Amino acid sequence: MAQNIFDNPTFFAEYKNLRENEPNYNDLLEQPAMRALLPDLAGKDVLDVGCGFGHNCREFAERGAKRVVGLDLSERMLAAAKAQNALPEIEYRRMDMADLDTLAAGAFDFVYSSLCFHYAADFPKLCADIFRLLRAGGRLLFSQEHPFTTCSKNESNRFLCDENGRADAYALAHYAERGRRTGKWFVDDVENYHRTFGDIVTALAEAGFHIERVVEPEPSPEAVRIRPGLEKEFIRPAFLLVRAVKCK
Amino acid sequence: MAQNIFDNPTFFAEYKNLRENEPNYNDLLEQPAMRALLPDLAGKDVLDVGCGFGHNCREFAERGAKRVVGLDLSERMLAAAKAQNALPEIEYRRMDMADLDTLAAGAFDFVYSSLCFHYAADFPKLCADIFRLLRAGGRLLFSQEHPFTTCSKNESNRFLCDENGRADAYALAHYAERGRRTGKWFVDDVENYHRTFGDIVTALAEAGFHIERVVEPEPSPEAVRIRPGLEKEFIRPAFLLVRAVKCK
Repeated sequence: MAQNIFDNPTFFAEYKNLRENEPNYNDLLEQPAMRALLPDLAGKDVLDVGCGFGHNCREFAERGAKRVVGLDLSERMLAAAKAQNALPEIEYRRMDMADLDTLAAGAFDFVYSSLCFHYAADFPKLCADIFRLLRAGGRLLFSQEHPFTTCSKNESNRFLCDENGRADAYALAHYAERGRRTGKWFVDDVENYHRTFGDIVTALAEAGFHIERVVEPEPSPEAVRIRPGLEKEFIRPAFLLVRAVKCK
Repeated sequence: MAQNIFDNPTFFAEYKNLRENEPNYNDLLEQPAMRALLPDLAGKDVLDVGCGFGHNCREFAERGAKRVVGLDLSERMLAAAKAQNALPEIEYRRMDMADLDTLAAGAFDFVYSSLCFHYAADFPKLCADIFRLLRAGGRLLFSQEHPFTTCSKNESNRFLCDENGRADAYALAHYAERGRRTGKWFVDDVENYHRTFGDIVTALAEAGFHIERVVEPEPSPEAVRIRPGLEKEFIRPAFLLVRAVKCK
């Protein structure tokens, strides 16, 4: 089971504030790149793994999905989703992504997950479970923290600066050491799992997926203007996106 | 056309010495990982892009390949290959990998390339050309310098050390800036091309390939003992290997 950090009251309040009140990395960087990779959803059955506040579930329904199931481990997240993003086509359910094997096989045309899979301990199982949930021709689109960042063991000062104090490099470390990491993000001991790029692509391939796209999103000039600091994404991308298909 | 640095006499002499006289990265790290990903070659038509001294062409013939074509841009490399690794099944030819579109379509069951593709200016074209050369069910296996290293603009001191002088991080920079790089390797202005992970995988997928494996090789304990310094590969792998198939 993944750590349920989103039900920590301090974490939840801070995270909610981050997502609602600032120009944040999700809105400026990750979400535009994910949206560009969305397939046609008209009439489709969609599963959102780690649906959070339900913004994406609402968008999928508005894009014509027949049915949207939003899963999250956090009761607080699901309560917010039900309050803010309820629609007749959407069903919100509490579930750990480690338990996807309890759902019926072949029930979905599209599985989506935004910034959640780096919390999963067993990625090959997750890939196999999602492959099983999809119909032939169905797609998986997910984002996760980039292996450049998941590899870090919470060292500080990850960016290195030139003589003018401008970040010009990133201190990459422990890349080949897979496994659990803990670090501070609003609260202590937030847990995630490091996998290499090769691990991620190979696990998807071994589950049977045909990989269509791998994207490491870069900010637009407008996004960099709105949020100085985002230009560091050109040194080392923070996110990795993959779109894959279950071939017919 | 790729730069023909291997016909530079100084470069050639130094490179030959490196490959023949030291326990080197190729033999300790890249070649074992490539060998582990080789398909069955019995009765197959094989193309080796950037065959160098022809060691791999010889191995493919010894593993039962019906016919092996070894291509290289360097006359000096091909002369050495013909002198050291001639077999009736092997044909050595001078060709730039940018010109693979001049060969007959569907002529090969397996295309192999060791540490060559980072010299190619147009990777999407290279992928499309190789896809065309393969028969249905045929495979491509290649290694290249890892994007962690191709991104570098020849900065010195890429590894960062702890207080005991032991390397514990790698200064990653310019990752999102694609394109030509030049640097010193035996001689000045050796040229290669930086592409991101995402670019590499997406180009293969868009050419039609089904990606089977992505491997970032790690040294064995024995290899680290033979060549101290190889433990840095756990901080940032130097090589990236991909095996892909042209589905039937």
